[in-house]
Amino acid sequence: MKDHGFPEEGRRRVVIEGITPSLDGGRFPVKRIVGDALGVEADVFADGHDELSVRLRWRNDRGGEDLAWSELPMEPLGNDRWRAQIQLDSVGRCRYSVVGWIDRFASWARDLQKRLDARQDVAVDLLIGAELIEGAARRAAESGAHDESERLQAWAADLRGDGPAAVRSGRALDATLVAVAERFPDRSLATTSEPQLGVIVDREKARFSAWYELFPRSASPVADRHGTLKDVIARLPYVAEMGFDVLYLPPIHPIGRTFRKGPNNRVGASASDPGVPWAIGADEGGHTAIHPDLGTLDDFDELVRAAAERGIEIALDVAFQASPDHPWVKEHPEWFRRRPDGTIQYAENPPKKYQDIVPFDFETPAWRELWTALEGVFRFWIDHGVLAFRVDNPHTKAFPFWEWAIGNITRDHPDAIFLAEAFTRPRVMQRLAKVGFTQSYTYFTWRNSKAELIEYFTELTTDPLVQFFRPNAWPNTPDILHESLQLGGLPMFQARFVLAATLSADYGIYGPAFELGEGAPLEHGSEEYLDSEKYQQRSWDLDAPHSLRPLIAAVNRTRRTHLALQRNDGLRFHRIDNDQLIAYTKQSPDGSDIVLAVVLLDPQRAQSGTLELDVAALGLDPSRPLELRDELTGATELWPGPRHDISLVPGTRQACLYAVRQSTRTEQQFETYR
Amino acid sequence: MKDHGFPEEGRRRVVIEGITPSLDGGRFPVKRIVGDALGVEADVFADGHDELSVRLRWRNDRGGEDLAWSELPMEPLGNDRWRAQIQLDSVGRCRYSVVGWIDRFASWARDLQKRLDARQDVAVDLLIGAELIEGAARRAAESGAHDESERLQAWAADLRGDGPAAVRSGRALDATLVAVAERFPDRSLATTSEPQLGVIVDREKARFSAWYELFPRSASPVADRHGTLKDVIARLPYVAEMGFDVLYLPPIHPIGRTFRKGPNNRVGASASDPGVPWAIGADEGGHTAIHPDLGTLDDFDELVRAAAERGIEIALDVAFQASPDHPWVKEHPEWFRRRPDGTIQYAENPPKKYQDIVPFDFETPAWRELWTALEGVFRFWIDHGVLAFRVDNPHTKAFPFWEWAIGNITRDHPDAIFLAEAFTRPRVMQRLAKVGFTQSYTYFTWRNSKAELIEYFTELTTDPLVQFFRPNAWPNTPDILHESLQLGGLPMFQARFVLAATLSADYGIYGPAFELGEGAPLEHGSEEYLDSEKYQQRSWDLDAPHSLRPLIAAVNRTRRTHLALQRNDGLRFHRIDNDQLIAYTKQSPDGSDIVLAVVLLDPQRAQSGTLELDVAALGLDPSRPLELRDELTGATELWPGPRHDISLVPGTRQACLYAVRQSTRTEQQFETYR
Repeated sequence: MKDHGFPEEGRRRVVIEGITPSLDGGRFPVKRIVGDALGVEADVFADGHDELSVRLRWRNDRGGEDLAWSELPMEPLGNDRWRAQIQLDSVGRCRYSVVGWIDRFASWARDLQKRLDARQDVAVDLLIGAELIEGAARRAAESGAHDESERLQAWAADLRGDGPAAVRSGRALDATLVAVAERFPDRSLATTSEPQLGVIVDREKARFSAWYELFPRSASPVADRHGTLKDVIARLPYVAEMGFDVLYLPPIHPIGRTFRKGPNNRVGASASDPGVPWAIGADEGGHTAIHPDLGTLDDFDELVRAAAERGIEIALDVAFQASPDHPWVKEHPEWFRRRPDGTIQYAENPPKKYQDIVPFDFETPAWRELWTALEGVFRFWIDHGVLAFRVDNPHTKAFPFWEWAIGNITRDHPDAIFLAEAFTRPRVMQRLAKVGFTQSYTYFTWRNSKAELIEYFTELTTDPLVQFFRPNAWPNTPDILHESLQLGGLPMFQARFVLAATLSADYGIYGPAFELGEGAPLEHGSEEYLDSEKYQQRSWDLDAPHSLRPLIAAVNRTRRTHLALQRNDGLRFHRIDNDQLIAYTKQSPDGSDIVLAVVLLDPQRAQSGTLELDVAALGLDPSRPLELRDELTGATELWPGPRHDISLVPGTRQACLYAVRQSTRTEQQFETYR
Repeated sequence: MKDHGFPEEGRRRVVIEGITPSLDGGRFPVKRIVGDALGVEADVFADGHDELSVRLRWRNDRGGEDLAWSELPMEPLGNDRWRAQIQLDSVGRCRYSVVGWIDRFASWARDLQKRLDARQDVAVDLLIGAELIEGAARRAAESGAHDESERLQAWAADLRGDGPAAVRSGRALDATLVAVAERFPDRSLATTSEPQLGVIVDREKARFSAWYELFPRSASPVADRHGTLKDVIARLPYVAEMGFDVLYLPPIHPIGRTFRKGPNNRVGASASDPGVPWAIGADEGGHTAIHPDLGTLDDFDELVRAAAERGIEIALDVAFQASPDHPWVKEHPEWFRRRPDGTIQYAENPPKKYQDIVPFDFETPAWRELWTALEGVFRFWIDHGVLAFRVDNPHTKAFPFWEWAIGNITRDHPDAIFLAEAFTRPRVMQRLAKVGFTQSYTYFTWRNSKAELIEYFTELTTDPLVQFFRPNAWPNTPDILHESLQLGGLPMFQARFVLAATLSADYGIYGPAFELGEGAPLEHGSEEYLDSEKYQQRSWDLDAPHSLRPLIAAVNRTRRTHLALQRNDGLRFHRIDNDQLIAYTKQSPDGSDIVLAVVLLDPQRAQSGTLELDVAALGLDPSRPLELRDELTGATELWPGPRHDISLVPGTRQACLYAVRQSTRTEQQFETYR
């Protein structure tokens, strides 16, 4: 016999496909910010010629399966495409799906009108309508809408009555009654799209943030004295004046002594060497302890409070690895891989050995306990007021762990932000963003030419990446001093800063090395800093006259006053006929705020070029002049049209950052001005 | 407490995503032909730096869940992309998925080599290797490979032994033994991609077929005598000589009498009018009966046999609708929609009424019985040797029915071919192809300008459509006589024929109207034929001197001798600087067979243009001459290079169809030849 594998319900005639946005067929949520509108589209159709009703439904994902769905009608765009838009008004995870059904009542009403227009006999059609309306009346009654039910019943009786057909036909299409009937549709054969899709709604800072990284042990105002968290508190005005809103600290935990590294990564430290902060854990404690030389947990709490008062939040470095002295190595040997000689497997990249670090074994049979302990690290610091985490090397820990941990934590703390410090292959970095990381480090550091920058930021700001991968651009980190900064001097630091802070709404610098233009590498060909703070404490002359503090403060001020710079989706590159000059605009969603950046990529020679601003694409009138205010100098310029010659000079005027608007002056006034 | 919703297994570290080909996230199968290679790619990676093993697995879908999977190693392409290729050697449905795991043994071997190269102490590493090899030995034993298990145990013992480290290290990487160990990998934490993906493997004719449609009732050699199936048998040589391999017959069933239509769709037929074949069903029977005037079921069986002898298969028209006189109307009134006055709902498109047709109600509570009966129609004719079905208006029947019916039937009869006659909106036509239709009618009839043709056939022959939508191009049908044919005369028939038969590997014509250039419409502005065979029988002068039979035969012969024309994926358009000339090549997958078509779209004026053949894209040498044989004339030409002037003349030389190859003659010989 044939295998008659009937579907459970073969009469669901409506098809729903091609829903956007949707990431990997719904496997992962897309990302938005609270206050955003989420536009959802779908192809919805059925066999034949019946009218459809299509709704977008969504609900907050916080409360389990039995929360009620909200619904919104979707509007047809033509070619079987439908659209609706949800206003995302609270943080957290939200699910959505599309539901559609054959609207027999609307089909009937449409056809009745055509029949009446053709002066056909509609006696039987009125009876069909009465049946449909009686169905709506029944559903109204079932939902407790007894008034509506009675109105519908009376209407149906009218259509069944023996009054003149012309009168009954007129009643049949009474707009008020039609609207009542449409409120109680027959959804018994409705199709609901599967799987349910998700959107993560983050707080504003997920998309718009300026990070400043410093080593607390170098924060002492006195050279050679180990810095403390109290010193960091004293440093807050300095950070705030530059306009940063996230202060990120490398690990502040006790540092292991076994195989401790000396300055410049020397094997074998002396007794006075402070060690590497990422070699986490010693007798004094592990991931939830404060290094005694930095202070106490109370000091930390005080730092969080003091920072908040200045609009700064503290971000911690979470590095899931241990020094051999970490308490967990003794307490939970089952979380580490043992070698046949009984020793614990240290980190290595053969033939290189990193014996000061032992990795967790994500294949341990005790993985549930390990996961719970690691998740507990985040929860510990969240309880101390931390909501931003820079996660070290997440790409060397199992993806399922991150999806579980970030999912769990953000269910309770939807404001938590996780920045993935993964510098690895594209698919791996993207997967981390998919499984839950809020922001991601990027290849920005290694994208230096104009062509590279245009290609890379176009990829980052368009589908599919724009749906889930939020770049956080850093011109330097303690691990990466790019050759261009080694060779380009302060002009290059200026260029890279403006690029990071204006191409990407999320960005950060590692200071004070950055603003002081620290450019000495460990050795030729290396991206490591000489005398890196990773291995030793340093003392910085914050008031050095060459400091980039003024530029940084001006750019951050500009970012705060321009919505256009607070997101990435309005990025557009413009033609300028010089490969050492790059020009782009960012534009706010409503089009009203436009910022034009032109950056000189050459640190040595002045360069000129003719910019061709694509004003039509920006919604401006190409025939009318433009008014531009350079937010870095305060000077205002009037351009008669979209073509304009620009000259930039290394160090002196490395970049300009124009607020652009259509000039209200007439051509004549402009000529006078010229 | 927190919701610790742990995954079932949190240690599956390998990620698999981005598998191609894949249609709608795996919801639908892609389509291929027996003998094709199916290249499958996927992004496969894990955290960290371990080596991976990745396999493609597949199995025939005929035998249920417990059939064994075949496996093939996937090869890394770089950037975390992996690839393997399955040879599809039997028709039917096939499933595939990707499986990947951390290959600890390969990682160990890789690292050991690096340690040896760096002259490090590997004593502990040899013990780690021994443990891994003992694991492989255990798995070998469990799978009954006792010899291999013993070899592996001996090897592990060697590595554990107290011989000189250098000797043991050499043994550790013994290639033969490594290969044995790799045959018994630890797959306990392997990741298998979900959902399983599918490919439908059709017989050759699904992709390469030439259809000829005729009305049996007009097949009589004697004017005014109703044609019979025996007349169709007599017509077979005519069809075979033109080179067609599918003979498609409009419905051959008894025709209803109630509301029968007269000639030219006149309401109210006279007693002698034969009616519309799509008004199926009368006292004599329904979808499984033969119209008495056409003959008997025995005659039909004889037709199928006689056609097969000439390499032709019979395709039937399956129109799931009934005349009011269809036996099912009385036997199964529950399959039709009743109106409140007790009558059965006839077909309509208000205000138009088609009272000679009643549609099935796919929302009937008895939908399972209805589906079974309709599926039975296909099975009945399959039992009579029919394996090709042209399905009438499938877009007015519920999609779930088609998916179920075609899925069921092709499980038993994987050679069955279903051509969807849906001329409707793109998403609807595409969905029918997704749910199972083998081939699809297209918009070809309405794509007439060069730009329209290029745009449309580019869409049809690239992703995603090329994965599931097989176009069957028809220049005319009994329902569609395009204005271009009405106005363009025989030259336009020639042009449209060559386009259909060479742009699309599947095509068809409705004859003899087509080859005789029948171009008279019912009225100005109509696409209906005057005196259409849909409503009356006709008599045709098959031997008229203007018949396009010779051209049709030549083109079909060319199609059979050129692999390039037997598929659509090698289509490429080339520049020719005249909008009335269109030029394109088709190329076989191995590149060796290339056919160049140049078609004159203008039916009235001769046109010339310079063709720029993109020879580099075709894998030819632009610096060497080309040899072209026009398959329609037999003439050979030598072109010195890729640029060539072409002139075509309406009616006389409406198109040329060149077999292209690199000339073996030298430039000098070529000059001599000139």
